[in-house]
Amino acid sequence: MAVKRRSDSKLDTSERGLVAAIRKRALGQKARGILHLGIGDDCAVLRPQPGRDLTITTDMSLEGVHFRRDWHPPDSVGHRCLARGLSDLAAMGARPEAAFLSLAMPANLTGAWMDGFFEGFFRLAKEAGVALAGGDLAKASQVTADIVLVGSVPKGKALLRSKARAGDVIYVTGTLGGSAAGLAALAKGRKVVESANPQLYPQPRLVAGHKLLRLATAAIDVSDGLSTDLNHLCEESGLGAEIDLEDLPVDARATLEQALHGGEDYELLFTAAPRTPVPAELGGVAVHAIGQMTKRGRGARMVLVDGRKRIGLKAGGWEHFGS
Amino acid sequence: MAVKRRSDSKLDTSERGLVAAIRKRALGQKARGILHLGIGDDCAVLRPQPGRDLTITTDMSLEGVHFRRDWHPPDSVGHRCLARGLSDLAAMGARPEAAFLSLAMPANLTGAWMDGFFEGFFRLAKEAGVALAGGDLAKASQVTADIVLVGSVPKGKALLRSKARAGDVIYVTGTLGGSAAGLAALAKGRKVVESANPQLYPQPRLVAGHKLLRLATAAIDVSDGLSTDLNHLCEESGLGAEIDLEDLPVDARATLEQALHGGEDYELLFTAAPRTPVPAELGGVAVHAIGQMTKRGRGARMVLVDGRKRIGLKAGGWEHFGS
Repeated sequence: MAVKRRSDSKLDTSERGLVAAIRKRALGQKARGILHLGIGDDCAVLRPQPGRDLTITTDMSLEGVHFRRDWHPPDSVGHRCLARGLSDLAAMGARPEAAFLSLAMPANLTGAWMDGFFEGFFRLAKEAGVALAGGDLAKASQVTADIVLVGSVPKGKALLRSKARAGDVIYVTGTLGGSAAGLAALAKGRKVVESANPQLYPQPRLVAGHKLLRLATAAIDVSDGLSTDLNHLCEESGLGAEIDLEDLPVDARATLEQALHGGEDYELLFTAAPRTPVPAELGGVAVHAIGQMTKRGRGARMVLVDGRKRIGLKAGGWEHFGS
Repeated sequence: MAVKRRSDSKLDTSERGLVAAIRKRALGQKARGILHLGIGDDCAVLRPQPGRDLTITTDMSLEGVHFRRDWHPPDSVGHRCLARGLSDLAAMGARPEAAFLSLAMPANLTGAWMDGFFEGFFRLAKEAGVALAGGDLAKASQVTADIVLVGSVPKGKALLRSKARAGDVIYVTGTLGGSAAGLAALAKGRKVVESANPQLYPQPRLVAGHKLLRLATAAIDVSDGLSTDLNHLCEESGLGAEIDLEDLPVDARATLEQALHGGEDYELLFTAAPRTPVPAELGGVAVHAIGQMTKRGRGARMVLVDGRKRIGLKAGGWEHFGS
């Protein structure tokens, strides 16, 4: 239900007009799941199902930090904004239930740019079966989008970062480094929009995450880069990890550096007991075993195994406020 | 559990250090309610109680739009950020369950300014009995804080904007215009911090809102100004409204204009059947009857009654992207 604006028609750029347009689009979504009352009141109302926990995540997308308007087309910004939140749900094994969006932008972007943003946003929302249930709108000097996702999982079954055990095999879905390589391509001025560029349209691994509920001991999504996210998993589980360099599914366009430290791949990094049969494919995405969890020794927490060489691996992904 | 930083100690300004400091503060909060897993994983996990709905709201606080760093002390910014969300819960009659905060700011504010922000934030969180369950942190050129509040109400009992009936009496808690008057005082350079300035430290009416579950037919919080928020109530209920000018509880420091159209009072505007006995005080706050809901006629939707004069009232509160 796209809100089409004829170029010759007067644009209603007041806040109420904008909210009404977004609400109309949101209402076009099929109501499903636990969303009882959506946009239009002080709060949305959810009616949780018995026997299920709710998972909630929030992620900011800031112009100049998480995207650039001269590199990322507006529908990519909307897609990525939602994908970040959906990917966190996938990492918990959760089913999406409702999304909330706080959006601030300069007044001159409330026309075509915002239309494009919502085109990408609602396209992915439809694919993921999630409704926009509320949000906030404001004027700002730069685009700021904060996404909130609510999901649900069977009670007590959410996949945590903290439940990996020593000896567990480490797996990752898809390939790594493609998003960082895609970003580098954009930075070099290749402005051609490639719908296959994972930097522009990353796919949250919701089906794979759901299937992991029966397989995995722990999971995290690769948003900050493999080395950083694996380090989170190690820290929360109180363990170390060994990664086999030759088993890493490096994206064909990416360098090893990008595969290890590049962020925004939004693949799932998970662990499973050695005896658990993990399929080579989950939800249409290839799965690769890349190493194993180890007891925390005196050496480096994370080790890259390159044939006979063992190299200490440090969290080298993206970090805000880093020096 | 304030995180004290000795002025001679090295400041850990990396993202992980900041998150660890916030997490430590959040863990100092008493765990309560339905929050099952807080900061530290891809999502927080809530375990809803049977027979209760969840209410969710999200609100942005942007530097230069919702506050100014030269007018609002940092603890006021933190307080106001949380108060905006809590006030939406109050307007649904909901009990606060969990808060999520997305915070972006320039790197040079991650020291004393951010400490002050969280001082105000956690002081109010403690009063309201709500835990910080998650969020996001990023670097930006201006301070951006997006707050998400999750609350709960008995199933099917959330106070909606849409349930007012013609003939219902209109009430408001507290006084109106104080926040706009307080803002005007700050704009005139009165930099003395008055802890009683409702612009700086507005009090969300959670107790009153909870009591309204048994009294009110509809409710909204006065965040955008009486005229705008009453208009929302009229629109959602398909009704008109008459306000008696002489019954308006205008704040002693405020003009009538500020009481009618000034925002950020965070009082509750609600309706109740004429036969419902509404106390003169709810949760320690005075309650005033200010008019009644009417059938939508051909004239102005909202009417101010001033003795024998009847004046059309238009939504004149704050609106983003307004012309």
